[in-house]
This record gives sequence, C-alpha cells and structure tokens, in this order.
Amino acid sequence: MDPIERAATVRYTDAAGLPDALRGADALFVYDFLSRAVPDAWHAADRLRWLHIASAGVDPVLFPELRDSDVVLTNSRGVFDSAIAEYVLGVVIAFAKDFAGSLRLQQRSTWRHRETERVAGTSALVVGTGPIGRAIATLLRAVGMRVAGAGRRARDGDPDFGTVVSSDELSRHLPDFDVVVAVAPLTEQTKGLFDAEAFAAMRPGARFVNVGRGELVVTGDLVSALRSGQLSGAALDVFEQEPLPQDSPLWTMENVLLSAHMSGDVVGWRNALVEVFADNFARWRDGGPLRNVVDKRLGYVPSTA
Amino acid sequence: MDPIERAATVRYTDAAGLPDALRGADALFVYDFLSRAVPDAWHAADRLRWLHIASAGVDPVLFPELRDSDVVLTNSRGVFDSAIAEYVLGVVIAFAKDFAGSLRLQQRSTWRHRETERVAGTSALVVGTGPIGRAIATLLRAVGMRVAGAGRRARDGDPDFGTVVSSDELSRHLPDFDVVVAVAPLTEQTKGLFDAEAFAAMRPGARFVNVGRGELVVTGDLVSALRSGQLSGAALDVFEQEPLPQDSPLWTMENVLLSAHMSGDVVGWRNALVEVFADNFARWRDGGPLRNVVDKRLGYVPSTA
Repeated sequence: MDPIERAATVRYTDAAGLPDALRGADALFVYDFLSRAVPDAWHAADRLRWLHIASAGVDPVLFPELRDSDVVLTNSRGVFDSAIAEYVLGVVIAFAKDFAGSLRLQQRSTWRHRETERVAGTSALVVGTGPIGRAIATLLRAVGMRVAGAGRRARDGDPDFGTVVSSDELSRHLPDFDVVVAVAPLTEQTKGLFDAEAFAAMRPGARFVNVGRGELVVTGDLVSALRSGQLSGAALDVFEQEPLPQDSPLWTMENVLLSAHMSGDVVGWRNALVEVFADNFARWRDGGPLRNVVDKRLGYVPSTA
Repeated sequence: MDPIERAATVRYTDAAGLPDALRGADALFVYDFLSRAVPDAWHAADRLRWLHIASAGVDPVLFPELRDSDVVLTNSRGVFDSAIAEYVLGVVIAFAKDFAGSLRLQQRSTWRHRETERVAGTSALVVGTGPIGRAIATLLRAVGMRVAGAGRRARDGDPDFGTVVSSDELSRHLPDFDVVVAVAPLTEQTKGLFDAEAFAAMRPGARFVNVGRGELVVTGDLVSALRSGQLSGAALDVFEQEPLPQDSPLWTMENVLLSAHMSGDVVGWRNALVEVFADNFARWRDGGPLRNVVDKRLGYVPSTA
C-alpha cells in the first residue's frame, strides 16, 4: 500500500469502524471480500466516488443503494483465474481416479485395486463465461475434454469455449455433459440456478463443481441429488453459508470434496489483490479509465470477447 | 480371445498348471503381468517361440534363460500411456492444492482456509522416456509446467521432452525440478536408482511420483527423505513388495498418496490388453513383424523417436 499512502490519506478499519472511516472518503477498498459491512455503513458515504473489491464476485457490495448511485464499482478480475482453473482440473481428475477412495483405503492400511476412469474424451459444461470460466475451459480442453460454456448469449466460435449455450436453456443442455462447473457471477438471474430441476436434467452419474458462489445452488437439492446417485460427485469450494455449518450433511458425504473458499487463493494472492487495487488507484488519481469496471446492472464486468 | 481360439488351440491356466500348458505351446500370453510363474515353468517350454506380456514393464519375465533364448518377447506398450499421465497430473495438482489435507479436515467437519500453490510455472523431471513418460510430459506441459526427461542419452530437441538429460548424471539434474516422476523400466541399471543420494540431491521440498516399478526406489531411503521433510510429498502407485505390507510406514504418512498399482487401469483396460495380444497374434500367424518387440538386452522396447 506504500504508493497509495504516499498519494492519499489511507484509513484502515474493520467493520465496526467503517462508518467513521467512510465519512469524507473518496474511495473504498473492500479487502475482506466476503464482508457484509458496506451496506450498513452506506449512510456515511458522503463523497464516495469509487469502490474496489478484492474479489471477482461483487455480490457482497452490490446492494440497491450502491447500484443506483454514481459510485463506480471495480473488482479484482484476473487474480484468481489460473489458480481456480487448476483446482477445477484437479478435482475432475481426482473424481476420475478416485483419489478420495484411495486416501480412505490408505487410512485403513488397505490395499485394493480398482478400475478408474479416463478424463480425456469426457465432457464439461462451464456455466459462466468470464475470465475464470475461460481459464477453466482452456485447462480442461488441454487434457482432452470436450468443453462448452453457458452464458447470457448462445453463440459458436467463441475463442475459449467454441460453443456457448444460453443459460436460459440450461436444462436442455445439461444432459450432454459429464461434468458441470458453476462459476457464474451471483445475480438475481443466477441465484438458485442449480436446483432440483437442473440436477435432474444432468447426465446420471454426472459430477458438479462449484467455484462460483454458494447461492448459485439450492443446497438441499444438491444433497438430494448426491444421495440418490443422480450425481456421482460434487466438489464444492463455496457454500450458501460460510463457514459451512457443522451440521451440514455435506461434511460426511463420501462423494463430496469440500474446501474452505480457497480454490483461487495461492501463495501471494493477497499481494496480488493489493497490486490490482494499486494499479487502479494510480489510474483513478490520474483521471484515466479504470480497469475491471463492473456493470452494476449486470452484476459483473462484461466480457470484451 | 475369439479370433485366437478360431486360429489356434488355446490353453488357459494358472501358475500351477503352467508347466503342463506350456509343453508343446508355440506362444505364451502372460495375462497376469505380475506373476512370477514363468521362470519356474520354463523347463517345459519345449517349442515356445513367442512370449507376450499384458504390461508395459517386462521385468517379471525377463529372466536369464528367456533373455538368452530365441523366444521373442513383446509387451503391451501403449495401453497405459494416457491413463497414467492423467494420474500423474492429478497427483501433481492434488499436492499443489492439498486435496488430502482438505479431505482430512472434511472428515473432522473442520473449516480451515489455507493458501495453496500454482502448478503452472513449476517444473518436473520425468525419468523414463518411453511412451508413458512421453504422455506424462505432454500433459504436464499442457498445464504450464516446465518439463524435461531423463533417459539413456542426453539430447536437446526431443519432440516431447525438449531436453533429455542422461540418467547417468541424474543427481546433477535433480536439484532443478519441483517434481520428479519415476517411470523408467526396471533393469539392472535402474534398480534402486532413487536412493538416499538421489533424494538428497532433489530440491528441498520436492515431490516424488512413482508410476514405474517399486524396485526403482530404495524404500527405506524414501521414507527417510519424507520424514526429514527433504521431500514434501510422494505419490506412489508401485512398491517393492505388492501388496504393500501392513507394517509399511508409508501407509500412515500424511505426505504420501498411495494407490494399489492401478494408475493405468481404466475401465476397459483388460479388453484393451487382450486386443493388443490379438493384434500381435494375427501378425505372428501371418509371419509379419510383431509390434512392441522388447530388446531383451535393454529390457524394454527401444523408442523409435
């Protein structure tokens, strides 16, 4: 933060101190990207012109008053792309090779040969065509998977996805894929997108990966689909409630791989997030165009592709 | 086996019946590729001309009497390449993302955010430049790793590896890599190749993957290197003794991922192995050149690349 401290008065605060800190501030950097403190402090934003968030998803700060204001919202698009893509490829292989089963057998000192699956030749639908979805598509395709995207607008010839199907017709396309990856931004349109109907439409034995937001999923419907065997596995890095409650049935399901909202958080990620903000701060101070400006009506940075 | 049964008298046998079955036989298909029954039955091989084994490694049947005989030895080169490569890529990502740690936390219903590692930009040395090693190199490179091979002959410009270093100078090159993958054939030259000296030469915190043969490794030295932290992890699919003995310390080491000699055994692998034999049988019956002829002096099929 040194370059910023040289150019501006910087106030560091937690949620409790946010109203005081926000009063008179021109810009707000929301570093704790899951904090819900901003709406409650909004009354103190008397001259705010710019809000930057240290995440790709902007749902925690996209409340109606901000949406309807003139405050510019930017995000940290780009920091997490490759790391999350590696995580997704990893869990896809982990399911195909039953790594979790091997680890459980190892814990019981039990030698048991099993037949596993090839990954090449299987297929994945990546729901969400932003930069993270594109990085996921690129990696899955690199190991020989057939990949398509699902986004706002159906099209062919996309540079990363080839085919993009319309998210509005998701259920029609879900049966065509072995793996479904949720990485869409959380908006009014995508909230609860993965519900009982969607899981029922998936190929029997399909696998589901969520690296987007927990609220994309109706958790109870996911649990049912996993219990019935309609889904043979789910890898979940995000949850409707985080930390995942102790009494969630997901903890104990053997066909579920859980992680603590960390798929993009590789060593150095915190520095990378500050660098994105510092870069945008320099642009903002110079009056230049900001990077990663969120379309507050859409709820994400529109793709230029 | 139908096409073969139409063209020849086929005798199916286990180890006990092998001497009787072998007497008068022209060809032997060793389907149980880890069986050590062939040397003991060799005295009955009174007219054997061809031995085919349902594996890539031929060490179980490459005993002196066979080596010095005129019997042609062929293997199942090609069946396992891509599946083993996927397994190797999977364990490389599993270590980087600490999937085992996530699973152990899940088993205790514990939410704990950790920082993980990027795979892209790290490096791997693949020791063994046959088709499986080449498939591994191709996949690791596809996710952005820097890859080199180690083989008999140092060279640059290899189509899959780029650089190949000499296995004779392994210790000199081991410090340059984050991951070392053992996939060399087991021969007198490679037995015990990975010993205390080799592990000490590796980069501190390196990871080791063995998908070749257990006897490539001095197991006690591997255990020591894992205990001291010199290696931060090992993924082992093959072992000096299989099944891995109950009292092996490897079972309980948290930085070890074990599997039961299965990394190449994807659904359909048994059929694929019979198809390789059937293809070679048709060639043999027609007097044509066989595929996958092992150089019995080298102990593997020499690469044409």
